[in-house]
Amino acid sequence: MIDETFIRRTLTLARRAEGKTSPNPMVGAVLVRNGIIISEGYHKKAGTAHAEVIAIEKAGLAAAGSTLYVSLEPCCHKDKRTPPCTEKIITSKIRKVVIGMLDPNPKVSGKGMEQLRKAGLEVVPNILDRESRKLNEIYIRHITGRVPFVILKVAMTLDGKIATPEGESKWITGEAARRDVHRLRGKVDAIMTAIGTVRADDPLLTCRIGKMKSPVRVIVDPGLTIDPRARILSCPPQSVLVARKSSDPKKKEALEQRGILFIEHSEERPDMQKLAKELYERMGITSLLVEGGSSLNSSCLEAGIVDKVIFYIAPKIIGGKESFPAVGGRAFKPLGEAHQLKEATIRRTGQDFVIEGYLREI
Amino acid sequence: MIDETFIRRTLTLARRAEGKTSPNPMVGAVLVRNGIIISEGYHKKAGTAHAEVIAIEKAGLAAAGSTLYVSLEPCCHKDKRTPPCTEKIITSKIRKVVIGMLDPNPKVSGKGMEQLRKAGLEVVPNILDRESRKLNEIYIRHITGRVPFVILKVAMTLDGKIATPEGESKWITGEAARRDVHRLRGKVDAIMTAIGTVRADDPLLTCRIGKMKSPVRVIVDPGLTIDPRARILSCPPQSVLVARKSSDPKKKEALEQRGILFIEHSEERPDMQKLAKELYERMGITSLLVEGGSSLNSSCLEAGIVDKVIFYIAPKIIGGKESFPAVGGRAFKPLGEAHQLKEATIRRTGQDFVIEGYLREI
Repeated sequence: MIDETFIRRTLTLARRAEGKTSPNPMVGAVLVRNGIIISEGYHKKAGTAHAEVIAIEKAGLAAAGSTLYVSLEPCCHKDKRTPPCTEKIITSKIRKVVIGMLDPNPKVSGKGMEQLRKAGLEVVPNILDRESRKLNEIYIRHITGRVPFVILKVAMTLDGKIATPEGESKWITGEAARRDVHRLRGKVDAIMTAIGTVRADDPLLTCRIGKMKSPVRVIVDPGLTIDPRARILSCPPQSVLVARKSSDPKKKEALEQRGILFIEHSEERPDMQKLAKELYERMGITSLLVEGGSSLNSSCLEAGIVDKVIFYIAPKIIGGKESFPAVGGRAFKPLGEAHQLKEATIRRTGQDFVIEGYLREI
Repeated sequence: MIDETFIRRTLTLARRAEGKTSPNPMVGAVLVRNGIIISEGYHKKAGTAHAEVIAIEKAGLAAAGSTLYVSLEPCCHKDKRTPPCTEKIITSKIRKVVIGMLDPNPKVSGKGMEQLRKAGLEVVPNILDRESRKLNEIYIRHITGRVPFVILKVAMTLDGKIATPEGESKWITGEAARRDVHRLRGKVDAIMTAIGTVRADDPLLTCRIGKMKSPVRVIVDPGLTIDPRARILSCPPQSVLVARKSSDPKKKEALEQRGILFIEHSEERPDMQKLAKELYERMGITSLLVEGGSSLNSSCLEAGIVDKVIFYIAPKIIGGKESFPAVGGRAFKPLGEAHQLKEATIRRTGQDFVIEGYLREI
C-alpha cells in the first residue's frame, strides 16, 4: 500500500513531461526516508538528466540509506547521452529500489534490476505495472515493435457520422472535446490526415494549447492534388506529403523547395504498414495520431497499424446514408472478426461522450 | 427531505407494475403516521384499484389523521371504471397529501389538488417532479399529445453500423444488452419494424423475460412482400401489417383470415405521423418501440415522432461504407439542425455501452 502510494506519486511526476520526452519514456522518481519524501525528480526531455539522477542529486548526502521509488526500471546501458542510472543509485548508497514496471527496452529489461541486486540493494519490481504501462504506452510500442504507437481519433455524431454528404463537419463535438483533441496533438510526434480532409476543412492540425509542441503533419495525397496554398503546408512544424512516385514532378520540386518532405509509394495507395515504419525509421516518429476521414480511418484499421482508438461522440443525430461514416472503405469485418476494443472505457467531456480502448495489448 | 424519502418510496412501488398499467400511469402510494409507513399500495393494472385506494383500505381506520404520499396527483373525475380517489381520501379523514407530480391529464391537472384543499386538507405538490415525470414518460406523452410515446432503439458497433453489407447483425451487442432490450419490449404496447429486418433476421420481437407481456408487432411492408411463413406473423400477440392500399388483395385477405390486422396507406411509403396516430386511436397503442433498420430509423426521425432514443454501442469496429448505418435514409440534417439529445446519459451494460436521451422535452 505504501509502495503503491509512492509509485503513484512517481507516475504523477512523470506525467508532467507528457509529450516532451519522445523518444524516451516519461519517468518519475522520489527518494523516501522514514516514510517521508526527501526529494523528487522527473525526466523532462530526451538528452537531459533521468528522473532518478535528479532526485538523487537533490537529496545530496541524504540519499544514503533511503529508498528510491521510480516508475520505470533504472537504465543500465551506456548506449546513450547520459550515464547509466544504476551506477548512480549504487554509488549514492541507496538501500532499496521500488519499481513501477520493468523497462521493455531489450537493452535494460530486468538487467537494471539485476545490477542493483548484485550490488546488494533490495529491489521490488512491478508495483502498479498496469498504470505504468498505460502511462508509457507510446514508449512500449516503439521500443518493442520499432514502429509508432498509432492512435485513431474520431469525432462523430451518435449515429456514427463524421460529416454530412456535403462534407460539413464543423463542429460535430463541443469545445471541451476539441480542447481534448488539441491536448492529444501535443502528446504525439505526428498527425496523419488525408487529402480529402485537407480539401474539405483546410485544417492546421496544430496543438493550440499552452506551451505544448505541435506535431509533424503527414498528409496522404496519392495524386499530389493538394492546393499549394493549403494552410497545413505553410505553418511550422514539418509537413510530410505521402504521394505516388509518378505524381507531378514539378509540383513536387516546388513543394520540396519550401521544406516539405516527401514519402513516395509506387502502388496506387500507400501501404500503411510500410508508411508507419518509414515515419519511424526516417523521422523518428514514435507516435502517430490519425485524424482522417472515412477512408483513411478504414485503411489504417485494415492495415492493422492502430493501437488505440478514441471516439468522441456528440449526443446528436444527423442520419443520411450518404453522410460520411466514422469508418468507411470498401472492406468491412464480419461480426466475428470485428476490431475488438480491449479495456474499453467511457467518459464525458463537456456535452459529449468519449469511448476509448486498445486494439492491441499494451 | 422526509417528503422526498416517502415520495421516492411511492416511485419504487409504482415501478413494480412497469409495463402492466397501460394506458394508465404507474402510481404508488404510502400512508404515514408519526414518521412511520402504516400501509402501501400501487396501481397494478388498468381497471383495477388505484394506488391510494389500496393503501387507504389496507390502513383501515388508522388512515384517519395520517399523511398520504402519492407519486401522481389523485384523480377527481368519474370518467372511468373506478370512483375518484379524492372522495376516498376525504372520507377517510386523511389530513395531508404530498404529491410527486400533478397529473398532466387535462381532466385532473390541479383539479384533484383543489378538491382536496377545498375539503380542508393540506396539499404539497411537485415533490420529485422530474423523477415522477421520467417514470411516467409514456403516460405523459399519450395523455397530453394523444399519440404514442416513441422510443427508437439501435444496437450498433462503435463505428455506427447495425449490419454488415451482407446483412449480418447477430449479434452486435452482448447478452446483457439483449436482455435489456427484452425488458424494454415488456414495457411497451407495440414494437415497429420494417420488412427489411424481417427478411434479414426473421425475428420474433417478443419479450422473452419472466412474466412480462409481449407487445403488438407492427411491420412496415409497403409492397406486402412478407413471407407468410415469417415467424413474426405466426406467434401471439397481435401482428399489424402496414402496407399500400394497392398491394396484393389475395395475400392480404389470406393474412387477415389468420388474424393479422392491416393499416393501409395510399402513398408510396407510409406517413409515420399518421401511422403513429392511427396505432394510438385504433388500437390504443400508448408506447411504440422502433426496432428497425437504417431506413425505418431515418423515417421515424424525419417524421419527428421519436420521443426518446436508446443506442446500445458495442466496443467493436467493422467499417465499410456499404455496411448499414444506424440511421440511413436519403435525408440528413445539417449539423446546426441535428436531432439533439436532451438529458443524454451513458451507462455500461455488460461489455457494451448505452447512450440514451430525449428528442422532446418530457
